[in-house]
Amino acid sequence: MTQAKRITSFHPPRRTLLGPGPSDMNPRVIATLAQPVIGYLDPAFVTMMEELKELMRYAYQTTNPLTFPMSGPGSVGMEACFVNLVEPGDKVIVCRNGVFGGRMLENVERCGGVPVVLDETWGEPVDPEKLEALLKANPDTKIVAFVHAETSTGAQSDAQALCDLARKHGALTIVDCVTSLGGTPVQVDAWQADAVYSGSQKCLSCTPGLSPVSFSERAIAKVKARSKGKVQSWFMDLNLVLAYWGETSRTYHHTAPGNSLYALHESLLLLQEEGLENAWARHQRNHEALKSGLEAMGLQYLVKASARLPQLNSVHIPEGIDDLTVRKTLLNDYNIEIGAGLGPLAGKIWRFGLMGYSSRQENVLLLLSALSAVLGEMGYKHDAGAAEAAAHGAYSAHHALAAKKKS
Amino acid sequence: MTQAKRITSFHPPRRTLLGPGPSDMNPRVIATLAQPVIGYLDPAFVTMMEELKELMRYAYQTTNPLTFPMSGPGSVGMEACFVNLVEPGDKVIVCRNGVFGGRMLENVERCGGVPVVLDETWGEPVDPEKLEALLKANPDTKIVAFVHAETSTGAQSDAQALCDLARKHGALTIVDCVTSLGGTPVQVDAWQADAVYSGSQKCLSCTPGLSPVSFSERAIAKVKARSKGKVQSWFMDLNLVLAYWGETSRTYHHTAPGNSLYALHESLLLLQEEGLENAWARHQRNHEALKSGLEAMGLQYLVKASARLPQLNSVHIPEGIDDLTVRKTLLNDYNIEIGAGLGPLAGKIWRFGLMGYSSRQENVLLLLSALSAVLGEMGYKHDAGAAEAAAHGAYSAHHALAAKKKS
Repeated sequence: MTQAKRITSFHPPRRTLLGPGPSDMNPRVIATLAQPVIGYLDPAFVTMMEELKELMRYAYQTTNPLTFPMSGPGSVGMEACFVNLVEPGDKVIVCRNGVFGGRMLENVERCGGVPVVLDETWGEPVDPEKLEALLKANPDTKIVAFVHAETSTGAQSDAQALCDLARKHGALTIVDCVTSLGGTPVQVDAWQADAVYSGSQKCLSCTPGLSPVSFSERAIAKVKARSKGKVQSWFMDLNLVLAYWGETSRTYHHTAPGNSLYALHESLLLLQEEGLENAWARHQRNHEALKSGLEAMGLQYLVKASARLPQLNSVHIPEGIDDLTVRKTLLNDYNIEIGAGLGPLAGKIWRFGLMGYSSRQENVLLLLSALSAVLGEMGYKHDAGAAEAAAHGAYSAHHALAAKKKS
Repeated sequence: MTQAKRITSFHPPRRTLLGPGPSDMNPRVIATLAQPVIGYLDPAFVTMMEELKELMRYAYQTTNPLTFPMSGPGSVGMEACFVNLVEPGDKVIVCRNGVFGGRMLENVERCGGVPVVLDETWGEPVDPEKLEALLKANPDTKIVAFVHAETSTGAQSDAQALCDLARKHGALTIVDCVTSLGGTPVQVDAWQADAVYSGSQKCLSCTPGLSPVSFSERAIAKVKARSKGKVQSWFMDLNLVLAYWGETSRTYHHTAPGNSLYALHESLLLLQEEGLENAWARHQRNHEALKSGLEAMGLQYLVKASARLPQLNSVHIPEGIDDLTVRKTLLNDYNIEIGAGLGPLAGKIWRFGLMGYSSRQENVLLLLSALSAVLGEMGYKHDAGAAEAAAHGAYSAHHALAAKKKS
């Protein structure tokens, strides 16, 4: 027999996750994972599934009946939207202002769609005027796909404006909300978005590996009206998935990831208890404190103020400072994970995430303190202590305001 | 704002899982889930990934470098094998002797393959002679696909014989080992199987949602030599997944399901500690005790003795006994989950699983005791106590033998 080498139980080091995801899980979510698994057709499990759909509708601000978690990471949610909605020959406008727009394009091509690419500088939001021009030039466009919150840059696009334009020109929309859901307003019904997907491990701070999705009645109608053969993926075929997650029946499709679903239920419950608007305000408040500190250190944001995601802060790496050394020092000496740049931004930016449970005052102060020290050691000239002082200032103003409101 | 109704934290009822999966998790696996998540490129995580691959190679008895867990349930492992290996126009022989052979056929069709179906009565193993005849009649066959352990019936096919025939005729093999891995011998190298997949929640008794896969060099060569365009699934494209799970590089592909992977690491470690041969012997021993009891109750197996899976016992429902009433009573009054029949076997069989951590003496005795009582209440005539007595007899013989070996 082939023998494996000596291996022992795995115990991860304690990190503070301040990159583009995963984010730290709330202890309640971690505890929820550690329950026995039960059958995926158990009445108790089915009740939990119904609650999960209800909680997801709240998070997405939608009444879409078809709102449920796909049993895979965000890329499965993305691919599910494309393989179901795009038939061979369908023209799809893909807005690409970062890595994930590029991945959408890959999906369109693999579905046999005809892509029309709206390219935007990385770090910029998608320009609605460019979309309108493309829609006018391509009146046969069936679908417009864009990323609400680009995880690779920290830029937020105007989902309402983009969805309005698509609808005006008779196209459906596929919207990537992986990094936005729970951290910044996602309003599926107000936008009248048609297919949206997210990930469990960003601002929901759940275990990675699930992708909450929601589909409008228009999207379902297009899936049901497919005329060019079956959805190419058996696993992601909504016609089949619906039989398990739909309203009326509970037919076995695939084995549901029980423990991860328990955890998502708890994450969404925490979001409901806090209240969406409070969660958005918390992300904004911690972003502002971090920004005060980073700017006091002389660091510059990649994204212009009007399009910045509070949960994902991308800044230019100062000249002469080695990217990898800083990230390694933060990880090894401070147990802090931050994000690197991707693609054309590799080695040029850092991405500081303050997502979900990671978006907390203590993390902002810790990050500023550690980053200031590490940069100082590397010879970067800045006023030691200024960053933390600026953040404390931002928090003080908030705390004073909150106290005034209470009294 | 849309408000969600009042929902509280989810706590599953305590069940004993004796159906076709998921099976009960070992407490060590449950505890392992409940650790903080870390980044998917964290050096500590990468070390864990390497150990995971090593442990999976031991479980599969293979030296295949490309042996890793897909980030989705067994159906993702299945689909990954087909979308990577089957190009449009490829002739694929699909052996269908249950639900999962049928799902393989769905996959071939959705990949644009040309299927040739070998149909076998449900409950029978695949007949190697029929395969040989089909291979001779179809010399252009590129792939032979079959299910080693049919979860819908409990029948085991002779993987060695089927793989040998395929290889002799120049075809690659795709083998479903979802229910067999860890419970009955799976010998990927000895079989010279080309693409195998399994699930985390059967005889590995891990959290559901992962699919261990392994690919031979021949399989990888076919994927790399594809001439008719990219793999239709971005998420499952081995060329991309390899960049994250491969030997040399760690390029971001999708966010790995961290906690579930920790749990799989622990499940496979438990298997290594017990030893594969001991685990197989344990499954066999508990199967024999259960069989003694079921037969003492007068119940008949669906599958002939030579093809029975020890971990999945399918028996005919006695005439006049209502399927659903029995399953509901076992669940509600005894907290025991057993499996129903699927497709043409719905309402005709029960499936008793003794998989992984669920394969224990106390579960066999509990199941026989509960089933005997429930059937008795429903007027089924049998000798009360005979089932348990028979099982005790089987265990006593084993314990006596074990004691003799020790002395």
